[in-house]
Amino acid sequence: MSINPIHEPQSALPPTLRWVGGVEGYLELIDQTRLPVELVQIACREVDEVWEAIRALRVRGAPAIGIAAAYGVCLGVQSMIGENENAFFNRLSEAATRLASARPTAVNLSWALARMARVASALRGSAAVVQIADRLLAEARQIEAEDRQMCRAMGRHGAALLRDGQGVLTHCNAGGLATADYGTALAVLFAAHEQGTRLRVYVDETRPLLQGARLTAWELQRRGIDTTLICDSMAAQVMREGRVGAIITGADRIAANGDTANKIGTYGLAVLAAAHDIPFYVAAPSSTFDLAIETGDQIPIEVRDSREITHGFGRQVAPDGIHVYNPAFDVTPARLIKAIICEHGIIEPVTYQHISQMLANRRR
Amino acid sequence: MSINPIHEPQSALPPTLRWVGGVEGYLELIDQTRLPVELVQIACREVDEVWEAIRALRVRGAPAIGIAAAYGVCLGVQSMIGENENAFFNRLSEAATRLASARPTAVNLSWALARMARVASALRGSAAVVQIADRLLAEARQIEAEDRQMCRAMGRHGAALLRDGQGVLTHCNAGGLATADYGTALAVLFAAHEQGTRLRVYVDETRPLLQGARLTAWELQRRGIDTTLICDSMAAQVMREGRVGAIITGADRIAANGDTANKIGTYGLAVLAAAHDIPFYVAAPSSTFDLAIETGDQIPIEVRDSREITHGFGRQVAPDGIHVYNPAFDVTPARLIKAIICEHGIIEPVTYQHISQMLANRRR
Repeated sequence: MSINPIHEPQSALPPTLRWVGGVEGYLELIDQTRLPVELVQIACREVDEVWEAIRALRVRGAPAIGIAAAYGVCLGVQSMIGENENAFFNRLSEAATRLASARPTAVNLSWALARMARVASALRGSAAVVQIADRLLAEARQIEAEDRQMCRAMGRHGAALLRDGQGVLTHCNAGGLATADYGTALAVLFAAHEQGTRLRVYVDETRPLLQGARLTAWELQRRGIDTTLICDSMAAQVMREGRVGAIITGADRIAANGDTANKIGTYGLAVLAAAHDIPFYVAAPSSTFDLAIETGDQIPIEVRDSREITHGFGRQVAPDGIHVYNPAFDVTPARLIKAIICEHGIIEPVTYQHISQMLANRRR
Repeated sequence: MSINPIHEPQSALPPTLRWVGGVEGYLELIDQTRLPVELVQIACREVDEVWEAIRALRVRGAPAIGIAAAYGVCLGVQSMIGENENAFFNRLSEAATRLASARPTAVNLSWALARMARVASALRGSAAVVQIADRLLAEARQIEAEDRQMCRAMGRHGAALLRDGQGVLTHCNAGGLATADYGTALAVLFAAHEQGTRLRVYVDETRPLLQGARLTAWELQRRGIDTTLICDSMAAQVMREGRVGAIITGADRIAANGDTANKIGTYGLAVLAAAHDIPFYVAAPSSTFDLAIETGDQIPIEVRDSREITHGFGRQVAPDGIHVYNPAFDVTPARLIKAIICEHGIIEPVTYQHISQMLANRRR
């Protein structure tokens, strides 16, 4: 893996990840573990380098992981372009299996790998290996392009909900760093900003892993948006002082009734928003909806390692042997969500019926 | 300032602060910034060392700050014992002014300093300077002794509000480390625990300075209470899961109508408690009430250094130049507080009338 430290003006925003060159090219991505102190891009030229980057959260966010894995497949087959079809497909399968193991629970990862495998299989026996490799690269580029379009569409729909001069609060990172380009919740802010809507954005630092402080604050600052960092516990006071007129977050999974799983702390924000009469919005692509799940009660909540809390950032901050409860997500009931912004439009009010209508439209 | 690392068994709890020696003695206190990894005591022999210890939160918590400031006055006049009365009183006044500037929000600081000044003034012209110095030390010791009694009384009154097997959530540190001995909010838990009431206590880590993780978790653990550490953003989820039946915090200043200033995040907890039908209690000695202030709107809120948030774990976690909003306190309106536990009893409901009655009783 080669490393390329970047020294650029504050306004420049390199892509979260991109393919450099043609079928013999490589994947370049921002090492998000080094942000916000250093902006470093790494070049991945081997499947194992992509695997490690996903595993170690150098690239993170469901859409970005899916795209990285798709390009990882392209890296996997590069050395097989001169070989026979069987060898090529064996290598393809090996690469996909390896990449799928990097974060086994990430839905977009297996979704992107399955899509790449389908494209290759469809050409097996009817195209030369070099053509299949070309087609795989085109498919990976297509997954990336679709993600960009989805982000832009969400931004366009959501920007209409924000008023000039408004304060907006966000939580965790639902930004460009989680996608190919523009983000989900942050896409709304970026689109509004590009349209000339002046915003003041408050960012929860988002304990325990501080994605708000490390990633969201960095993205907003780089795009020239007026950004103020707060601790999660300050959100209620910021609301009480009348500093924010809207709250917007991303989502990890949305049930058929609109109950939304997202980063721990989101549910509390939604309760506080209701108590302060502030609209609470969720921005998420239609792929985030899981219609097999009726309500949020059925969404499993991942409980993570206690050391994320007791040893935040390499220093012990709690006594040895203390019990810890570290749920990574919570579920916000649909009744607390004023609208869900997806790439097809605005779902409001958030009901089973409106969600099914919106998702049915997309399939036409 | 001399430093004295302590190596003691887990169960031992040295005093938060104590005066060592007679009128020429010094103030010894636990350096709370080094907890929970190291238990270190420091000796303060100058006013400026006490000022720095308060400012840097080596000693913190409204009652403990008041006691430290009272002893700080004693340190201030030590060098003036051979001087004339005017010089003595000038030095006394200088010391009090200096100490008062260490933390603006804590009412106990100015309360203790005013009390020390009154004692000295009453003797001016009728006693030798050395006698006034003796009387000041006796008064500081008295403030400390009253604090110990007050903690025990609050514990006794408050313990009656808790049920066996109950989950209780607390925020920041309103424990022994915030007082001479036993705490305010934690006094209630300690007293209940000593009476055999089994509790499961959830502790908010309390960003930015992590007093919950560093201090409260440490104190509860040392006393053998079942303790679980969470991030501030997890409190809503803990409430939603039905894990807690009561919330109890301390207070930094309480207005005549019961509006309560306390560590940032307290107001949000009170709103969340109301949304989940969980009683929200405040435990605070009568010295915390500031009857000169009608409502919480008039309480000044200290805004602290942005580096507490951006560099909070000894490592930079936010981009250079990011704006930060770091209010150290918030104000919880009386209507969200089910009861205030003070050393004279339980104030419930929290109204202007009940507060004035309780405080009037104390003066008899």
